[in-house]
Amino acid sequence: MGKSRLEAFSDGVIAILITIMVLELKTPNGADWDALRVTLPHLLSYVLSFVFLGIYWNNHHHMLQATHRINGTILWANLHLLFWLSLVPAATAWMGEHVHEAVPTAVYGIVLLLSGVAYFVLQRRIIAQEGPDSDLARAVGSDVKGKLSPVLYALAIGLSFINPAFADGIFVLVALIWLVPDPRIEARISSRASE
Amino acid sequence: MGKSRLEAFSDGVIAILITIMVLELKTPNGADWDALRVTLPHLLSYVLSFVFLGIYWNNHHHMLQATHRINGTILWANLHLLFWLSLVPAATAWMGEHVHEAVPTAVYGIVLLLSGVAYFVLQRRIIAQEGPDSDLARAVGSDVKGKLSPVLYALAIGLSFINPAFADGIFVLVALIWLVPDPRIEARISSRASE
Amino acid sequence: MGKSRLEAFSDGVIAILITIMVLELKTPNGADWDALRVTLPHLLSYVLSFVFLGIYWNNHHHMLQATHRINGTILWANLHLLFWLSLVPAATAWMGEHVHEAVPTAVYGIVLLLSGVAYFVLQRRIIAQEGPDSDLARAVGSDVKGKLSPVLYALAIGLSFINPAFADGIFVLVALIWLVPDPRIEARISSRASE
Amino acid sequence: MGKSRLEAFSDGVIAILITIMVLELKTPNGADWDALRVTLPHLLSYVLSFVFLGIYWNNHHHMLQATHRINGTILWANLHLLFWLSLVPAATAWMGEHVHEAVPTAVYGIVLLLSGVAYFVLQRRIIAQEGPDSDLARAVGSDVKGKLSPVLYALAIGLSFINPAFADGIFVLVALIWLVPDPRIEARISSRASE
Repeated sequence: MGKSRLEAFSDGVIAILITIMVLELKTPNGADWDALRVTLPHLLSYVLSFVFLGIYWNNHHHMLQATHRINGTILWANLHLLFWLSLVPAATAWMGEHVHEAVPTAVYGIVLLLSGVAYFVLQRRIIAQEGPDSDLARAVGSDVKGKLSPVLYALAIGLSFINPAFADGIFVLVALIWLVPDPRIEARISSRASE
Repeated sequence: MGKSRLEAFSDGVIAILITIMVLELKTPNGADWDALRVTLPHLLSYVLSFVFLGIYWNNHHHMLQATHRINGTILWANLHLLFWLSLVPAATAWMGEHVHEAVPTAVYGIVLLLSGVAYFVLQRRIIAQEGPDSDLARAVGSDVKGKLSPVLYALAIGLSFINPAFADGIFVLVALIWLVPDPRIEARISSRASE
Repeated sequence: MGKSRLEAFSDGVIAILITIMVLELKTPNGADWDALRVTLPHLLSYVLSFVFLGIYWNNHHHMLQATHRINGTILWANLHLLFWLSLVPAATAWMGEHVHEAVPTAVYGIVLLLSGVAYFVLQRRIIAQEGPDSDLARAVGSDVKGKLSPVLYALAIGLSFINPAFADGIFVLVALIWLVPDPRIEARISSRASE
Repeated sequence: MGKSRLEAFSDGVIAILITIMVLELKTPNGADWDALRVTLPHLLSYVLSFVFLGIYWNNHHHMLQATHRINGTILWANLHLLFWLSLVPAATAWMGEHVHEAVPTAVYGIVLLLSGVAYFVLQRRIIAQEGPDSDLARAVGSDVKGKLSPVLYALAIGLSFINPAFADGIFVLVALIWLVPDPRIEARISSRASE
């Protein structure tokens, strides 16, 4: 089964998610800098979620590039990932309205945690299909980032009840860890192409 | 006539539908778990509709993969299907606001029923074009699921006036029936590919 | 210059336009049939606009299929068409809220008229590029439908100030005229393919 | 690394941005011409932003057409451009509600300025990858338009505090400068193709 429609559909959904978050940026009440300043927490939440969705699109792009065939299970594992990602805009809007409050920050962390788990499951299903000697399997390797992120998200969820600012700091940290596109897969594809 | 733009357009519309439902998930009024709990019926309606649209995308994907050529009638049969699917977000939002009420639940069922009928019509038009000996015709076969679903939807519509919870149960049941991607078409494509 | 990204971008915009009109279908106030009946004018306006956008997508699909190369002028003629189409949802929502009122009906007609003109301009630019002996030029031929529609739209705009119902009738009439996919281009492509 | 998914994703995001701005065109309060006239500033802001996003899509299309390979840095430079473009709808809505006021006009200019800078960065990254002798590098050449635009945007931002109408005039001027699709790249591609 070809992977092109899976890529196209995922691109579509992620492109829409990353864009409709803008609709939550309410027009400021007033026409001065103060009115704009009130929307700053919304804007910062938006930036954070934009980066997270960008990271998912980027990694999804890399992973699918190293994928040769898909099956029905992979289709559903992909839809499962898109489901959790689809909750990011709602979680972002809630956190944007209630910065420095425990529950919205924790819920934002839960959505990120479950998105990460769904990505991990999708990766497992694709590797199961591609085989343990596939480019993808070797490129993913021990997957330190993929295993570290859920731990950090869980930590952030817990810390948001102590001080939501700690959780925010961890979210930024995880984003920074992932912001570099995965050199392992890119390197392996390049080395293959030049063999 | 090529099928690639039909696939791209359908992917686009379904990707947008599955995503804009999120816009109906209103931000909770407040920052505690209670505020979140109030949005739970909306969230559950969203999950159900996400799964239904995911099923349609999945089956559409499989069906088009076994399709070789399309014509003007198929284009319109496809737009007809997209029309009924496009009402899913509105029906979901209404049901989410009025859980356990008869009319919104029945209307949700009607939208699902007519989407199912439109899918059936599209499938008939494609099989008419592909011919009775085509891969698709044989893969679809007696189409038990496709014939059972409308009956179950009709039952749900009726039952929603007795107890909407019965209807909800049937919606979940139909989703479960379809959740498994159609092994018939997938199997046939695989066996063909290996001939 | 390849036409694939032009097709993809147009598909994207039309898919989004046809879908976001659903967001204007406000959730009924209440949970009974009466509440639903109040939204009926909105729903009918939505159906009409869905059909119009479906016709444009369909004809655009056929026209681009007979197009071999595009240039910068065609890109802008296409964006010009997408601009007028992008006003359809707003015009639909306004007409849906004020059925049987002159100005919203006339404005809806104006948006359709200018969309039709923009489509005609795009078609002219593509034929200028393809040449007078191209498949497309011969397929379009005297373009009776394309010339009749603006006349009917202008008539509808005028009549909406006498009785908006007359204008509505003309909108439905134009939709019916176009609903049949253009057999000229389809026939010519088929005959070419079998030569 | 192939560029097709980058193109598809960018097309998707820009198509959505250009379309969701329509959602900010609130339905007029009333059914007469006066009600429509009130929405005129919104409509004009929408036209301006539609043209700007159309220009970006157009130039992006041309630039990517002359691009052969991409890498991780280009992916992120592209997401960075999409981020600033994604703020255009919000800036447009704010300016539409407060025409002839300094801060919303200046903020609109800032979003355009940073979008222009992000486009410039993306172009630099692609040229770095393609090499100084590439078609793209020679086509871009001294890039007068690309260097003039930020200067004009900065001027507009400053002038908006004296008289926002001056800034509006500069926005229209920059749009007109870019409205012509870039003949340099198009010419070079054509000449290459005919070699």
